[in-house]
Amino acid sequence: MADDALPPEIAESPELPQLRATSWAVLGLLSFGEELSGYDLKKWADWSLRFFYWAPSFSQIYGELHKLEALGLTSSRVVTKDDLRNKRLYAITEAGQATLARWASEAPVETPVLKHGVMLRMWLGHTTDPDKLRAMLTEHRDRSEKMRVRAAADAEGSADEPGWAYPQLVLQWSERYYADERDRADAMLADLDRVSRIAQESAPGRTPGSAPGKASP
Amino acid sequence: MADDALPPEIAESPELPQLRATSWAVLGLLSFGEELSGYDLKKWADWSLRFFYWAPSFSQIYGELHKLEALGLTSSRVVTKDDLRNKRLYAITEAGQATLARWASEAPVETPVLKHGVMLRMWLGHTTDPDKLRAMLTEHRDRSEKMRVRAAADAEGSADEPGWAYPQLVLQWSERYYADERDRADAMLADLDRVSRIAQESAPGRTPGSAPGKASP
Repeated sequence: MADDALPPEIAESPELPQLRATSWAVLGLLSFGEELSGYDLKKWADWSLRFFYWAPSFSQIYGELHKLEALGLTSSRVVTKDDLRNKRLYAITEAGQATLARWASEAPVETPVLKHGVMLRMWLGHTTDPDKLRAMLTEHRDRSEKMRVRAAADAEGSADEPGWAYPQLVLQWSERYYADERDRADAMLADLDRVSRIAQESAPGRTPGSAPGKASP
Repeated sequence: MADDALPPEIAESPELPQLRATSWAVLGLLSFGEELSGYDLKKWADWSLRFFYWAPSFSQIYGELHKLEALGLTSSRVVTKDDLRNKRLYAITEAGQATLARWASEAPVETPVLKHGVMLRMWLGHTTDPDKLRAMLTEHRDRSEKMRVRAAADAEGSADEPGWAYPQLVLQWSERYYADERDRADAMLADLDRVSRIAQESAPGRTPGSAPGKASP
Protein backbone atom coordinates (compact mmCIF):
# COMPACT_ATOMS: atom_id res chain seq x y z
CA MET A 1 0.00 0.00 0.00
CA ALA A 2 1.31 3.49 -0.87
CA ASP A 3 2.32 5.44 2.20
CA ASP A 4 1.14 8.79 0.88
CA ALA A 5 -2.59 7.99 0.99
CA LEU A 6 -4.72 6.95 3.94
CA PRO A 7 -6.25 3.51 3.38
CA PRO A 8 -10.04 3.95 2.94
CA GLU A 9 -10.90 2.02 6.11
CA ILE A 10 -9.04 4.69 8.06
CA ALA A 11 -9.55 7.86 6.01
CA GLU A 12 -13.30 7.36 5.59
CA SER A 13 -14.31 5.56 8.75
CA PRO A 14 -15.30 7.67 11.74
CA GLU A 15 -14.15 4.68 13.81
CA LEU A 16 -10.56 4.04 14.82
CA PRO A 17 -9.42 0.46 14.09
CA GLN A 18 -10.24 -1.68 17.15
CA LEU A 19 -6.76 -2.45 18.45
CA ARG A 20 -5.62 -3.28 21.96
CA ALA A 21 -3.31 -0.83 23.71
CA THR A 22 -0.42 -3.24 23.06
CA SER A 23 -0.87 -2.69 19.30
CA TRP A 24 -0.79 1.07 19.77
CA ALA A 25 2.32 0.64 21.92
CA VAL A 26 4.18 -1.22 19.13
CA LEU A 27 2.97 1.35 16.58
CA GLY A 28 4.21 3.96 19.06
CA LEU A 29 7.69 2.39 19.10
CA LEU A 30 7.82 3.01 15.33
CA SER A 31 6.34 6.52 15.56
CA PHE A 32 9.72 7.98 16.54
CA GLY A 33 10.54 7.68 12.86
CA GLU A 34 13.20 4.95 12.74
CA GLU A 35 13.04 1.78 10.69
CA LEU A 36 13.40 -1.10 13.17
CA SER A 37 13.84 -4.88 13.11
CA GLY A 38 11.82 -7.12 15.46
CA TYR A 39 14.99 -7.38 17.54
CA ASP A 40 15.29 -3.58 17.74
CA LEU A 41 11.61 -3.29 18.72
CA LYS A 42 12.10 -5.77 21.56
CA LYS A 43 15.18 -3.82 22.73
CA TRP A 44 13.33 -0.48 22.52
CA ALA A 45 10.38 -1.92 24.47
CA ASP A 46 12.76 -3.21 27.16
CA TRP A 47 14.29 0.28 27.36
CA SER A 48 10.97 2.07 27.77
CA LEU A 49 7.55 0.34 27.78
CA ARG A 50 8.57 -2.32 30.31
CA PHE A 51 8.83 0.20 33.13
CA PHE A 52 5.26 1.49 32.98
CA TYR A 53 3.22 -0.68 30.63
CA TRP A 54 4.42 -3.88 29.05
CA ALA A 55 7.49 -6.10 28.55
CA PRO A 56 6.51 -7.82 25.27
CA SER A 57 7.94 -11.12 24.05
CA PHE A 58 9.23 -11.44 20.47
CA SER A 59 6.13 -13.41 19.51
CA GLN A 60 3.86 -10.67 20.91
CA ILE A 61 5.78 -8.03 18.94
CA TYR A 62 5.56 -10.02 15.69
CA GLY A 63 1.87 -10.66 16.34
CA GLU A 64 1.20 -6.94 16.68
CA LEU A 65 3.33 -6.11 13.60
CA HIS A 66 1.31 -8.61 11.57
CA LYS A 67 -1.97 -6.89 12.56
CA LEU A 68 -0.54 -3.40 12.00
CA GLU A 69 0.82 -4.19 8.51
CA ALA A 70 -2.49 -5.81 7.49
CA LEU A 71 -4.16 -2.49 8.35
CA GLY A 72 -1.57 -0.52 6.37
CA LEU A 73 -0.32 1.20 9.54
CA THR A 74 3.19 -0.20 9.14
CA SER A 75 5.23 -1.40 6.18
CA SER A 76 8.25 -3.67 6.07
CA ARG A 77 11.09 -4.59 3.75
CA VAL A 78 13.87 -7.18 3.75
CA VAL A 79 17.46 -5.92 3.76
CA THR A 80 20.76 -7.77 3.72
CA LYS A 81 22.15 -8.23 7.20
CA ASP A 82 25.44 -9.74 6.12
CA ASP A 83 26.59 -11.94 3.21
CA LEU A 84 24.67 -14.87 4.70
CA ARG A 85 21.53 -13.44 6.23
CA ASN A 86 18.70 -10.99 5.57
CA LYS A 87 16.56 -9.16 8.08
CA ARG A 88 13.14 -7.51 7.90
CA LEU A 89 12.83 -3.87 8.87
CA TYR A 90 9.51 -2.32 9.95
CA ALA A 91 8.42 1.30 9.62
CA ILE A 92 5.32 3.30 10.39
CA THR A 93 3.37 4.55 7.34
CA GLU A 94 1.73 7.96 6.98
CA ALA A 95 -1.56 6.18 7.61
CA GLY A 96 0.04 4.78 10.78
CA GLN A 97 1.20 8.21 11.95
CA ALA A 98 -2.21 9.74 11.23
CA THR A 99 -4.09 6.89 12.95
CA LEU A 100 -1.80 6.91 15.99
CA ALA A 101 -2.33 10.69 16.31
CA ARG A 102 -6.11 10.16 16.09
CA TRP A 103 -5.91 7.44 18.78
CA ALA A 104 -3.81 9.70 21.02
CA SER A 105 -6.31 12.56 20.83
CA GLU A 106 -9.64 10.71 20.43
CA ALA A 107 -9.50 7.38 22.29
CA PRO A 108 -10.44 7.43 25.99
CA VAL A 109 -7.37 7.15 28.23
CA GLU A 110 -7.03 3.74 29.92
CA THR A 111 -7.15 4.14 33.70
CA PRO A 112 -3.88 2.79 35.19
CA VAL A 113 -4.11 -0.88 36.20
CA LEU A 114 -2.12 -2.16 39.19
CA LYS A 115 -2.10 -5.85 40.13
CA HIS A 116 0.31 -5.96 43.04
CA GLY A 117 0.86 -9.64 43.86
CA VAL A 118 3.23 -8.76 46.72
CA MET A 119 0.63 -6.54 48.42
CA LEU A 120 -2.02 -9.24 47.90
CA ARG A 121 0.21 -11.60 49.95
CA MET A 122 0.85 -8.93 52.59
CA TRP A 123 -2.90 -8.29 52.87
CA LEU A 124 -3.27 -12.02 53.59
CA GLY A 125 -0.32 -11.93 56.00
CA HIS A 126 -2.36 -13.71 58.66
CA THR A 127 -2.34 -16.86 56.49
CA THR A 128 1.46 -17.28 56.44
CA ASP A 129 4.40 -16.61 58.73
CA PRO A 130 6.22 -13.29 59.15
CA ASP A 131 9.59 -14.70 57.99
CA LYS A 132 8.12 -15.54 54.57
CA LEU A 133 6.57 -12.07 54.39
CA ARG A 134 9.88 -10.46 55.29
CA ALA A 135 11.76 -12.46 52.64
CA MET A 136 9.12 -11.63 50.00
CA LEU A 137 9.18 -7.91 50.86
CA THR A 138 12.99 -7.82 50.85
CA GLU A 139 13.07 -9.46 47.41
CA HIS A 140 10.47 -6.96 46.16
CA ARG A 141 12.49 -4.10 47.63
CA ASP A 142 15.66 -5.26 45.84
CA ARG A 143 13.84 -5.83 42.52
CA SER A 144 12.38 -2.30 42.75
CA GLU A 145 15.86 -0.85 43.27
CA LYS A 146 17.19 -2.80 40.24
CA MET A 147 14.35 -1.41 38.12
CA ARG A 148 15.08 2.11 39.39
CA VAL A 149 18.72 1.78 38.33
CA ARG A 150 17.72 0.55 34.85
CA ALA A 151 15.14 3.31 34.36
CA ALA A 152 17.71 5.90 35.45
CA ALA A 153 20.26 4.55 32.94
CA ASP A 154 17.69 4.56 30.12
CA ALA A 155 16.56 8.11 31.01
CA GLU A 156 20.22 9.15 30.87
CA GLY A 157 20.65 7.35 27.54
CA SER A 158 17.72 9.18 25.95
CA ALA A 159 18.94 12.62 27.07
CA ASP A 160 20.83 13.53 23.88
CA GLU A 161 17.97 12.86 21.46
CA PRO A 162 15.48 15.80 21.37
CA GLY A 163 12.97 13.56 19.56
CA TRP A 164 12.85 11.46 22.73
CA ALA A 165 11.93 14.31 25.08
CA TYR A 166 8.62 12.66 26.08
CA PRO A 167 10.08 9.15 26.48
CA GLN A 168 12.79 10.69 28.66
CA LEU A 169 10.16 12.43 30.78
CA VAL A 170 8.38 9.07 31.30
CA LEU A 171 11.68 7.30 32.05
CA GLN A 172 12.40 9.92 34.73
CA TRP A 173 8.88 9.28 36.09
CA SER A 174 9.69 5.53 36.03
CA GLU A 175 12.96 6.05 37.91
CA ARG A 176 10.99 7.85 40.61
CA TYR A 177 8.19 5.24 40.53
CA TYR A 178 10.62 2.44 41.43
CA ALA A 179 12.41 4.59 44.00
CA ASP A 180 9.01 5.18 45.67
CA GLU A 181 8.19 1.46 45.40
CA ARG A 182 11.52 0.63 47.10
CA ASP A 183 10.90 3.19 49.86
CA ARG A 184 7.38 1.92 50.56
CA ALA A 185 8.78 -1.62 50.87
CA ASP A 186 11.40 -0.37 53.36
CA ALA A 187 8.70 1.39 55.39
CA MET A 188 6.59 -1.78 55.43
CA LEU A 189 9.58 -3.91 56.51
CA ALA A 190 10.11 -1.50 59.41
CA ASP A 191 6.45 -1.98 60.49
CA LEU A 192 6.35 -5.75 60.02
CA ASP A 193 7.49 -6.85 63.51
CA ARG A 194 4.89 -4.73 65.29
CA VAL A 195 2.11 -5.82 62.92
CA SER A 196 2.97 -9.52 63.05
CA ARG A 197 2.86 -9.38 66.89
CA ILE A 198 -0.63 -7.83 66.81
CA ALA A 199 -1.76 -10.33 64.16
CA GLN A 200 -0.36 -13.30 66.14
CA GLU A 201 -2.49 -12.27 69.12
CA SER A 202 -5.75 -12.30 67.13
CA ALA A 203 -4.85 -14.40 64.04
CA PRO A 204 -8.37 -14.97 62.58
CA GLY A 205 -6.95 -17.07 59.76
CA ARG A 206 -5.11 -19.34 62.19
CA THR A 207 -8.24 -20.48 64.03
CA PRO A 208 -10.56 -22.07 61.49
CA GLY A 209 -12.51 -23.51 64.42
CA SER A 210 -13.78 -20.02 65.04
CA ALA A 211 -14.65 -19.42 61.39
CA PRO A 212 -18.41 -19.16 60.72
CA GLY A 213 -17.95 -21.85 58.07
CA LYS A 214 -17.60 -24.31 60.95
CA ALA A 215 -20.99 -23.33 62.31
CA SER A 216 -22.77 -23.41 58.97
CA PRO A 217 -25.10 -26.36 58.29
CA MET B 1 -19.18 -31.20 52.49
CA ALA B 2 -18.20 -31.37 56.17
CA ASP B 3 -15.94 -28.49 57.14
CA ASP B 4 -13.89 -30.53 59.56
CA ALA B 5 -12.20 -32.72 56.93
CA LEU B 6 -10.06 -31.68 53.96
CA PRO B 7 -11.66 -32.79 50.69
CA PRO B 8 -9.49 -35.57 49.20
CA GLU B 9 -8.50 -33.52 46.12
CA ILE B 10 -6.86 -31.05 48.49
CA ALA B 11 -5.66 -33.22 51.39
CA GLU B 12 -4.08 -35.87 49.20
CA SER B 13 -2.95 -33.96 46.14
CA PRO B 14 0.54 -32.45 46.17
CA GLU B 15 -0.89 -29.88 43.76
CA LEU B 16 -2.78 -26.76 44.81
CA PRO B 17 -6.06 -26.30 42.89
CA GLN B 18 -5.32 -24.26 39.75
CA LEU B 19 -7.06 -20.99 40.57
CA ARG B 20 -6.36 -17.49 39.34
CA ALA B 21 -5.19 -14.91 41.85
CA THR B 22 -8.69 -13.37 41.75
CA SER B 23 -10.11 -16.60 43.23
CA TRP B 24 -7.52 -16.52 46.02
CA ALA B 25 -8.40 -12.87 46.60
CA VAL B 26 -12.12 -13.68 47.11
CA LEU B 27 -11.18 -16.63 49.35
CA GLY B 28 -8.91 -14.18 51.16
CA LEU B 29 -11.84 -11.82 51.80
CA LEU B 30 -13.53 -14.70 53.65
CA SER B 31 -10.36 -15.75 55.49
CA PHE B 32 -10.84 -13.00 58.07
CA GLY B 33 -13.46 -15.28 59.55
CA GLU B 34 -16.72 -13.47 58.91
CA GLU B 35 -19.74 -14.85 57.08
CA LEU B 36 -20.43 -12.46 54.19
CA SER B 37 -23.08 -11.90 51.53
CA GLY B 38 -22.12 -11.16 47.92
CA TYR B 39 -22.95 -7.54 48.66
CA ASP B 40 -20.62 -7.55 51.70
CA LEU B 41 -17.83 -9.13 49.63
CA LYS B 42 -18.17 -6.41 46.98
CA LYS B 43 -18.05 -3.75 49.72
CA TRP B 44 -15.01 -5.37 51.39
CA ALA B 45 -13.20 -5.60 48.04
CA ASP B 46 -13.92 -1.90 47.39
CA TRP B 47 -12.49 -1.09 50.82
CA SER B 48 -9.26 -3.04 50.31
CA LEU B 49 -8.42 -5.03 47.14
CA ARG B 50 -9.32 -2.19 44.76
CA PHE B 51 -6.37 -0.08 45.87
CA PHE B 52 -3.65 -2.57 45.00
CA TYR B 53 -5.10 -5.45 43.07
CA TRP B 54 -8.65 -5.64 41.78
CA ALA B 55 -12.02 -3.90 41.88
CA PRO B 56 -14.30 -6.89 41.16
CA SER B 57 -17.84 -6.62 39.78
CA PHE B 58 -20.68 -8.55 41.47
CA SER B 59 -20.67 -11.07 38.62
CA GLN B 60 -16.93 -11.66 39.04
CA ILE B 61 -17.40 -12.21 42.79
CA TYR B 62 -20.27 -14.68 42.26
CA GLY B 63 -18.24 -16.43 39.55
CA GLU B 64 -15.35 -16.94 41.96
CA LEU B 65 -17.67 -18.05 44.81
CA HIS B 66 -19.18 -20.66 42.49
CA LYS B 67 -15.72 -22.11 41.74
CA LEU B 68 -14.63 -21.96 45.39
CA GLU B 69 -17.76 -23.71 46.70
CA ALA B 70 -17.45 -26.44 44.04
CA LEU B 71 -13.96 -27.12 45.42
CA GLY B 72 -15.25 -27.19 49.00
CA LEU B 73 -13.17 -24.12 49.90
CA THR B 74 -16.26 -22.09 50.84
CA SER B 75 -19.74 -22.97 52.02
CA SER B 76 -22.95 -20.95 51.92
CA ARG B 77 -26.37 -20.88 53.56
CA VAL B 78 -29.57 -18.89 53.01
CA VAL B 79 -30.79 -16.74 55.88
CA THR B 80 -33.87 -14.53 56.22
CA LYS B 81 -33.05 -10.91 55.38
CA ASP B 82 -36.44 -9.53 56.34
CA ASP B 83 -40.02 -10.87 56.26
CA LEU B 84 -39.99 -10.70 52.46
CA ARG B 85 -36.50 -11.61 51.36
CA ASN B 86 -33.71 -14.11 51.97
CA LYS B 87 -30.02 -13.69 51.41
CA ARG B 88 -27.14 -16.13 50.92
CA LEU B 89 -24.16 -15.91 53.23
CA TYR B 90 -20.73 -17.30 52.30
CA ALA B 91 -18.02 -18.56 54.63
CA ILE B 92 -14.59 -20.11 54.24
CA THR B 93 -14.32 -23.78 55.22
CA GLU B 94 -11.45 -25.40 57.11
CA ALA B 95 -10.38 -26.84 53.76
CA GLY B 96 -10.46 -23.28 52.44
CA GLN B 97 -8.32 -21.93 55.30
CA ALA B 98 -5.82 -24.77 54.89
CA THR B 99 -5.65 -24.39 51.11
CA LEU B 100 -5.29 -20.59 51.29
CA ALA B 101 -2.46 -21.02 53.80
CA ARG B 102 -0.77 -23.53 51.45
CA TRP B 103 -1.14 -21.10 48.55
CA ALA B 104 0.29 -18.24 50.62
CA SER B 105 3.39 -20.22 51.55
CA GLU B 106 3.89 -22.45 48.48
CA ALA B 107 2.71 -20.64 45.35
CA PRO B 108 5.25 -18.37 43.60
CA VAL B 109 4.53 -14.69 44.26
CA GLU B 110 3.09 -12.86 41.22
CA THR B 111 5.44 -10.05 40.15
CA PRO B 112 3.53 -6.74 40.34
CA VAL B 113 1.89 -5.75 37.05
CA LEU B 114 1.55 -2.08 36.10
CA LYS B 115 -0.29 -1.00 32.95
CA HIS B 116 -0.16 2.77 33.13
CA GLY B 117 -2.34 4.08 30.30
CA VAL B 118 -1.59 7.68 31.26
CA MET B 119 2.19 7.17 31.00
CA LEU B 120 1.69 5.34 27.68
CA ARG B 121 0.05 8.54 26.34
CA MET B 122 2.77 10.73 27.83
CA TRP B 123 5.44 8.53 26.25
CA LEU B 124 3.70 9.19 22.90
CA GLY B 125 3.36 12.90 23.70
CA HIS B 126 4.81 13.82 20.32
CA THR B 127 1.66 12.44 18.66
CA THR B 128 -0.77 14.84 20.37
CA ASP B 129 -0.79 18.39 21.67
CA PRO B 130 0.52 19.58 25.05
CA ASP B 131 -2.89 20.92 26.16
CA LYS B 132 -4.42 17.45 25.91
CA LEU B 133 -1.45 16.01 27.83
CA ARG B 134 -1.82 18.66 30.52
CA ALA B 135 -5.56 17.99 30.90
CA MET B 136 -4.96 14.21 31.05
CA LEU B 137 -2.20 14.57 33.66
CA THR B 138 -4.29 16.95 35.76
CA GLU B 139 -7.21 14.50 35.73
CA HIS B 140 -4.84 11.66 36.70
CA ARG B 141 -3.39 13.82 39.49
CA ASP B 142 -6.87 14.53 40.90
CA ARG B 143 -7.98 10.87 40.63
CA SER B 144 -4.82 9.81 42.49
CA GLU B 145 -5.59 12.27 45.30
CA LYS B 146 -9.18 10.95 45.54
CA MET B 147 -7.83 7.39 45.83
CA ARG B 148 -5.36 8.50 48.50
CA VAL B 149 -8.19 10.02 50.57
CA ARG B 150 -10.25 6.81 50.28
CA ALA B 151 -7.31 4.57 51.19
CA ALA B 152 -6.55 6.80 54.19
CA ALA B 153 -10.18 6.59 55.37
CA ASP B 154 -10.23 2.78 55.00
CA ALA B 155 -6.88 2.44 56.83
CA GLU B 156 -8.37 4.55 59.63
CA GLY B 157 -11.53 2.43 59.63
CA SER B 158 -9.57 -0.82 60.02
CA ALA B 159 -7.47 0.49 62.92
CA ASP B 160 -9.67 -0.85 65.75
CA GLU B 161 -9.78 -4.46 64.54
CA PRO B 162 -6.59 -6.37 65.50
CA GLY B 163 -7.57 -9.15 63.05
CA TRP B 164 -7.11 -6.57 60.29
CA ALA B 165 -3.53 -5.60 61.18
CA TYR B 166 -2.16 -6.78 57.80
CA PRO B 167 -4.98 -5.23 55.73
CA GLN B 168 -4.38 -1.98 57.59
CA LEU B 169 -0.66 -2.17 56.80
CA VAL B 170 -1.50 -2.58 53.10
CA LEU B 171 -4.07 0.24 53.23
CA GLN B 172 -1.40 2.52 54.70
CA TRP B 173 0.90 1.41 51.87
CA SER B 174 -1.95 2.23 49.42
CA GLU B 175 -2.46 5.68 50.93
CA ARG B 176 1.23 6.37 50.32
CA TYR B 177 1.12 4.79 46.86
CA TYR B 178 -1.54 7.26 45.69
CA ALA B 179 0.17 10.18 47.40
CA ASP B 180 3.36 9.27 45.47
CA GLU B 181 1.33 8.88 42.26
CA ARG B 182 -0.16 12.36 42.81
CA ASP B 183 3.29 13.87 43.50
CA ARG B 184 4.84 12.31 40.38
CA ALA B 185 1.99 13.75 38.29
CA ASP B 186 2.64 17.20 39.80
CA ALA B 187 6.36 16.91 39.02
CA MET B 188 5.56 15.91 35.43
CA LEU B 189 3.11 18.80 35.02
CA ALA B 190 5.88 21.16 36.16
CA ASP B 191 8.21 19.75 33.45
CA LEU B 192 5.66 19.66 30.65
CA ASP B 193 6.18 23.16 29.19
CA ARG B 194 9.94 22.69 28.82
CA VAL B 195 9.55 19.23 27.33
CA SER B 196 6.80 20.21 24.87
CA ARG B 197 9.02 23.07 23.61
CA ILE B 198 11.91 20.66 22.97
CA ALA B 199 9.56 18.15 21.36
CA GLN B 200 7.99 20.83 19.13
CA GLU B 201 11.44 21.66 17.76
CA SER B 202 12.15 18.07 16.67
CA ALA B 203 8.67 16.46 16.57
CA PRO B 204 9.48 13.17 14.80
CA GLY B 205 5.84 12.14 14.89
CA ARG B 206 4.70 15.40 13.30
CA THR B 207 6.69 14.91 10.08
CA PRO B 208 5.62 11.61 8.48
CA GLY B 209 7.35 12.77 5.30
CA SER B 210 10.62 12.12 7.07
CA ALA B 211 9.55 8.72 8.38
CA PRO B 212 11.54 5.83 6.89
CA GLY B 213 8.19 4.28 5.95
CA LYS B 214 8.02 6.92 3.21
CA ALA B 215 11.28 5.73 1.75
CA SER B 216 10.46 2.02 1.89
CA PRO B 217 9.63 0.29 -1.41
